[in-house]
Amino acid sequence: MSYNIAALSKLIEQFERMPSIGRKSAQRMAFYVLNMSKDEAKVFANAIIDAHEKIHQCKICCNLTQDDVCTICQNKARDSSVICVVEDPRDVMAIERTHEFDGTYHVLHGVISPLNGVGPDKIAIKQLLARINTDEVKEVIMATNPTVEGEATAMYISKLLKPMGIVTTRLAYGVPVGADLEYADEVTLSRAMEGRRVI
Amino acid sequence: MSYNIAALSKLIEQFERMPSIGRKSAQRMAFYVLNMSKDEAKVFANAIIDAHEKIHQCKICCNLTQDDVCTICQNKARDSSVICVVEDPRDVMAIERTHEFDGTYHVLHGVISPLNGVGPDKIAIKQLLARINTDEVKEVIMATNPTVEGEATAMYISKLLKPMGIVTTRLAYGVPVGADLEYADEVTLSRAMEGRRVI
Repeated sequence: MSYNIAALSKLIEQFERMPSIGRKSAQRMAFYVLNMSKDEAKVFANAIIDAHEKIHQCKICCNLTQDDVCTICQNKARDSSVICVVEDPRDVMAIERTHEFDGTYHVLHGVISPLNGVGPDKIAIKQLLARINTDEVKEVIMATNPTVEGEATAMYISKLLKPMGIVTTRLAYGVPVGADLEYADEVTLSRAMEGRRVI
Repeated sequence: MSYNIAALSKLIEQFERMPSIGRKSAQRMAFYVLNMSKDEAKVFANAIIDAHEKIHQCKICCNLTQDDVCTICQNKARDSSVICVVEDPRDVMAIERTHEFDGTYHVLHGVISPLNGVGPDKIAIKQLLARINTDEVKEVIMATNPTVEGEATAMYISKLLKPMGIVTTRLAYGVPVGADLEYADEVTLSRAMEGRRVI
């Protein structure tokens, strides 16, 4: 389906490349942009350029930041001897929302995935090891996703850390709070049984 | 949920304003933009500005175009004595896809909707009447959506056109091809019965 309008087709294409955006959504979004005022369109375009220019990785934890060092690493109230290793900057925010963790983070920006050509050198493992060598780190919490790749990455990193005498822990598996046991898959349920605790 | 990164929050906000995009999708899209190369981000930002600067309404039919007059109005092979009135530029493309219509279009850019404060003067009815006065128009096909507002707009325009001696027609109602009668709503089904034809 072509609109015979080059500028519109180009804009639709741009939106269509985004994750989970299909042709119809891309069209709707492009028409939304057309209906913006000129100033709004400029603000939108600038937001894209700005985000690109201003945001980079924190020197310490590789999380996204506009400064050299992110606000969490800058915060002296946080316990830098505990590092929570996550795959993605969004995972940092998910854990921050719990308001339960006062350590620091390390963002890998991916997981080891040989099938997709991602080896250990392609994610921020080197930076994590460098950090552990210089800082006094007591515990590393592996909070990668409970997927095959996330699991493998957690195992890989914990094997590297073991000889360094650092405690490596993994997030607990179990049934999600508020969920229905009936709908829990077998693996989750058997892990929940394994990890049962005295009440 | 805040990322503590102004440039990122701004970008997420921009995406969140789009139709049918929620918080999570907006975040995914913003992160997608961050992972673009610098050049790709520039292309994206330019596509927004470009679409805004280059695209405007056709002088004749109010459809979107990069030229003064859109390709359909420019095309001499098309029958300018038949005008198909639609709500939106996307409707033009939907009808064009049928390859059955060789007349011209008129895009209203909305429907009369008193509840939303849209009166007849806020949509391109004036331009339609001006066109009918100057061109030799034989038939106006009302192809607004079969909604309450679309219906009312079609009735309103046809009443304006009647004294001018122009045939106004409306798209046929009926069951959609390939659909299951069982799932057709009563109104559609009774309209389909009303409009039945000898085979």
